[in-house]
Amino acid sequence: MKKIKDFIRTIPDFPKKGILFRDITPLLQDREGLQRAIALLQQECPEDIKAIVGIESRGFILGGALAVNLKVGFVPIRKRGKLPYTTERITYQLEYGTETIEIHTDSIQKGKKIILVDDLLATGGTAAASAKLIERLGGQIIKILFLIELTDLKGREKLKNYNLFSLIKY
Amino acid sequence: MKKIKDFIRTIPDFPKKGILFRDITPLLQDREGLQRAIALLQQECPEDIKAIVGIESRGFILGGALAVNLKVGFVPIRKRGKLPYTTERITYQLEYGTETIEIHTDSIQKGKKIILVDDLLATGGTAAASAKLIERLGGQIIKILFLIELTDLKGREKLKNYNLFSLIKY
Repeated sequence: MKKIKDFIRTIPDFPKKGILFRDITPLLQDREGLQRAIALLQQECPEDIKAIVGIESRGFILGGALAVNLKVGFVPIRKRGKLPYTTERITYQLEYGTETIEIHTDSIQKGKKIILVDDLLATGGTAAASAKLIERLGGQIIKILFLIELTDLKGREKLKNYNLFSLIKY
Repeated sequence: MKKIKDFIRTIPDFPKKGILFRDITPLLQDREGLQRAIALLQQECPEDIKAIVGIESRGFILGGALAVNLKVGFVPIRKRGKLPYTTERITYQLEYGTETIEIHTDSIQKGKKIILVDDLLATGGTAAASAKLIERLGGQIIKILFLIELTDLKGREKLKNYNLFSLIKY
């Protein structure tokens, strides 16, 4: 049987020279691969969680799938200016420049048990900022799930206060 | 029982003055609402379809959920420059300026039965362009699904060659 990792395509020099991009689209477009990946992420989720929070954009695909499978709600974290209602926002450092992300203030109630999901753990900046947004709203982060972890970039250290799971490691 | 439409929040003057924005996030974050919306979209999908194509970004949430429920693959259509592999691309007219979207050339095989999904049908420009991308790859569009249709904007006319379903109309 094909392993989950066998569905991932590595593309050199994308989005810029020297970067090996891990492309998850061959996994997503394969019915077996997608089912299996979601099932493996799902078995990491305790039964009492109340919502999946997904990070734009690829975290939306995994998050939407996980939320319906677990029969819980889905909450999006988006880039600045995309969410129409009152938001909590945070700005964090990137390699060059900064990024701002937002969450709707009414999306998570105090004490709500949350799983945060994204496709890729690289430096961990986006996930750490997302976790802060959830906590500012009073949400309780039970676990953070990734499809892929790039271990060299040590994103795990930035998230050491959280329970973290990645399906594939490079 | 709350209707699906009761979960949609209307926000005036977003993203700009004079626009009534239909915010689906209260629906997505409600476990009952999300389950029901996905189930209603799902019952519009014939059993023999092979993949869900979702349009970035909100179409990813619905598309990911539908794909795992239907046990088929998921294919993303993204804004220019986001997909790492060889793409088919199309540029289409917006109210002001143009937009370019892309799909991976290996994502759909000739004759494959496809459901295209997005959250909102407005003027229909993005959906019509997405449908063309799928057809250029040889995909057969069985149906186009939307959560919301803004009937005044007559997007349906631009998609009159397709089987179209929208869950809620304004």
